[in-house]
Amino acid sequence: MKDIEIRELFRNKEKYGDQEVVVHGWVRGNRSSNQFGFLSINDGTFFTPLQVVYEADNLANFTEISKVHLAAGVTVRGTLALTPEAKQPFEIKAKEIVVEADSQSDYPLQKKRHTMEFMREIAHLRPRSNTFSAVYRVRSIVAYAIHKFFQEQNFVYVHAPIITGSDAEGAGEMFQVTTLDPDNLPRTEDGKIDYSQDFFGKETNLTVSGQLEAEAFALAFRNVYTFGPTFRAENSNTARHASEFWMIEPEIAFADLQDDMDLAEAMVKYIITYTLEHAPEEMNFFNQFIDKGLLERLDHIVNSSFERVTYTEAVEILQKSGKEFQYPVEWGLELQTEHERYLTEEVYKKPIFVTDYPKDCKAFYMRLNDDGKTVAACDMLVPGVGEIIGGSQREERLDVLEARMKELGISENGYEWYLDLRRYGGVKHAGYGLGFERMIMYLTGMSNIRDVLPFPRTPKSAEF
Amino acid sequence: MKDIEIRELFRNKEKYGDQEVVVHGWVRGNRSSNQFGFLSINDGTFFTPLQVVYEADNLANFTEISKVHLAAGVTVRGTLALTPEAKQPFEIKAKEIVVEADSQSDYPLQKKRHTMEFMREIAHLRPRSNTFSAVYRVRSIVAYAIHKFFQEQNFVYVHAPIITGSDAEGAGEMFQVTTLDPDNLPRTEDGKIDYSQDFFGKETNLTVSGQLEAEAFALAFRNVYTFGPTFRAENSNTARHASEFWMIEPEIAFADLQDDMDLAEAMVKYIITYTLEHAPEEMNFFNQFIDKGLLERLDHIVNSSFERVTYTEAVEILQKSGKEFQYPVEWGLELQTEHERYLTEEVYKKPIFVTDYPKDCKAFYMRLNDDGKTVAACDMLVPGVGEIIGGSQREERLDVLEARMKELGISENGYEWYLDLRRYGGVKHAGYGLGFERMIMYLTGMSNIRDVLPFPRTPKSAEF
Repeated sequence: MKDIEIRELFRNKEKYGDQEVVVHGWVRGNRSSNQFGFLSINDGTFFTPLQVVYEADNLANFTEISKVHLAAGVTVRGTLALTPEAKQPFEIKAKEIVVEADSQSDYPLQKKRHTMEFMREIAHLRPRSNTFSAVYRVRSIVAYAIHKFFQEQNFVYVHAPIITGSDAEGAGEMFQVTTLDPDNLPRTEDGKIDYSQDFFGKETNLTVSGQLEAEAFALAFRNVYTFGPTFRAENSNTARHASEFWMIEPEIAFADLQDDMDLAEAMVKYIITYTLEHAPEEMNFFNQFIDKGLLERLDHIVNSSFERVTYTEAVEILQKSGKEFQYPVEWGLELQTEHERYLTEEVYKKPIFVTDYPKDCKAFYMRLNDDGKTVAACDMLVPGVGEIIGGSQREERLDVLEARMKELGISENGYEWYLDLRRYGGVKHAGYGLGFERMIMYLTGMSNIRDVLPFPRTPKSAEF
Repeated sequence: MKDIEIRELFRNKEKYGDQEVVVHGWVRGNRSSNQFGFLSINDGTFFTPLQVVYEADNLANFTEISKVHLAAGVTVRGTLALTPEAKQPFEIKAKEIVVEADSQSDYPLQKKRHTMEFMREIAHLRPRSNTFSAVYRVRSIVAYAIHKFFQEQNFVYVHAPIITGSDAEGAGEMFQVTTLDPDNLPRTEDGKIDYSQDFFGKETNLTVSGQLEAEAFALAFRNVYTFGPTFRAENSNTARHASEFWMIEPEIAFADLQDDMDLAEAMVKYIITYTLEHAPEEMNFFNQFIDKGLLERLDHIVNSSFERVTYTEAVEILQKSGKEFQYPVEWGLELQTEHERYLTEEVYKKPIFVTDYPKDCKAFYMRLNDDGKTVAACDMLVPGVGEIIGGSQREERLDVLEARMKELGISENGYEWYLDLRRYGGVKHAGYGLGFERMIMYLTGMSNIRDVLPFPRTPKSAEF
């Protein structure tokens, strides 16, 4: 008899009422008297565990089962009894229970509260807990929602290279990738390390962004997106930074900054709606145990039209607010997290786009506005998190781009291909980057990026 | 007036007959006389270009348009005329054409045959060509088909870490990831490089496989899959090897080798069916220009039941074949590509699984069969390509696994967490790895892995 996934039983319980079923699962709870006992089992396909009732009278191995450890893997054959009056909607009355793989009694994930720090130390076991089971299922569902959103609009998914010979925009510190033997570094005549002998014949790093490559594809396919890992070798130990994280970078041609923001807003709303629909048990759990008010907030966002305000306007609002900030507010200075959160949480009480930043705050490839001072950039700020998306219209005018690179001392060396894109049909185009983990934190209420990554990589930590 | 994507016009042309439409696109061809001309434009959303007719009598900038270069970006306003008798099903009679971004006359992608080698040199422009436009769209569609296949069965998508402190199974040469300054390497007292001062506090590499981490998640969620980049620092310049490639690694619990092969077979059939349905123009192009017989072969595969043969049987078949092979055939030796292709192409003429290899040919984590000599492994071999999938049931018995690691001299150091999975409910489980680019090569008939990756990384080459 073929087994049935526990998800299927929960989703279509009426179909199985009074039927004999076989399920597999891991023991999440076990309590028994001399005469009968209750196993709570979970096969990983559904958030809620399944209750199994077993009795000494019908179970040859009753004693074995009453002693089975937490985390043991079992197969249960029994009859599904609908229990509409009970807390759980049904239970299995066991006829047979086979222990497929027992567990040792020193199982680290005993039924009690554990600190998040402890859970990070057992990252190989924490997906079995309620919190992390919910986090990783939501993570998976959000990843799929993102693909679905873009694919249904015929975007082309591009795998931007991970190992790169260029340093993009100096977006951050980079990890070096090499196969040179550090104890026998080859040297050139003038004593420098001879990278021509390295694997790729030059110095290479881990990518910080796939945007430039995505631009090449957008100028062929019109609408494209990347979704892949990116890296920052920054020694910052905060709850919002990881050294390895995933990023989504859509890029659209024949499109300007307004189109870009329209796309970003539609995407965020789609992701929220899809996740609420496909992970209701998990989202209720987060709302109840991790972040009260989460569902209300998400619901509000789906039904809001996101505000758009220029950087210049934002600075005026902040200056007139009468609020004391730790960092100064002045035209030309970066907005700090406290400013961003004040704007989105207290002024607008919903997600906002701040646009048209001073060019000196932003990267070389952003399109210069007619005022000569600002660029067509946009940051999406959301209540509770702050910046979640950063985007811009790209500078498509070859002469302006070259002048800007010169101004910033960026050599054209290595960027010839990028400039080519402006030489041959470089129409207006725009794009943005979404930090995937930031989105998961936002959706789940989890407050540390280490707890939404399966096996986080942070300074001094690359376990598992 | 909002523009319409060219895909929409092709897919629903009747709806737009005699209507005025606005389209954007890049010029793929332009020929004209004194009185009229034809632009062939493509906006990247559809494989087939759109024909635009323009006449001196209704176009103020007729002269400009008649001189517009290949690759220029244009906006066309005009009337859609259905032309059921002509080669193309409709054309646009232009009322207005605006040049959004012209192109220089030295555009490298002129209308003539280019070698694949030349196209690799202009990887930033080649997505605009017919062949590469088809390749990358199919690549995107296949990626989505894979996600869809697993998500619809409720598999959890896991992002396995890219930077890793373990060397997995010694599956291949690895790239080192570091932030140490090679000109000032910190040393320990005994003169060794002091990796405790490196970014992660130890030596780290780029992953060669996410399998071990996927196992941890399968033992929580039952059914999971990874889809991410993996790396091999092997100095092999073949048409089938890249240093950076993408891999899909499903892992299923409460499952054995037969379940594993069932899943792999269903997945391959799903991918083919989905791609034929969603990229018919591209697949016809490959069939006509890249690999004649492709569609027939793919159709055959969808309708075949894949053969399953043990390694021991395969060796007997090869030995009795009377065929002269370059490499010897003997029990205990690896099957070479020539053997694999003979089996799948000449003996069975369809995909086959070869199972139960000698343990010495395979990795330490594969489950030892009762004969003590072979392991529960499977390779999927397909006509025209050879091995495309490698999988196994995993050794879930702690004592057997530990003995095997000892036999192979693999230290338990760094694998404690992997052994934990056997200590706490380590039920039977299995999984496989699919090389994503191999699958794309198989589906498109493209013969070099460099031509199915957007920006390939191979020895001495990490351009763009």
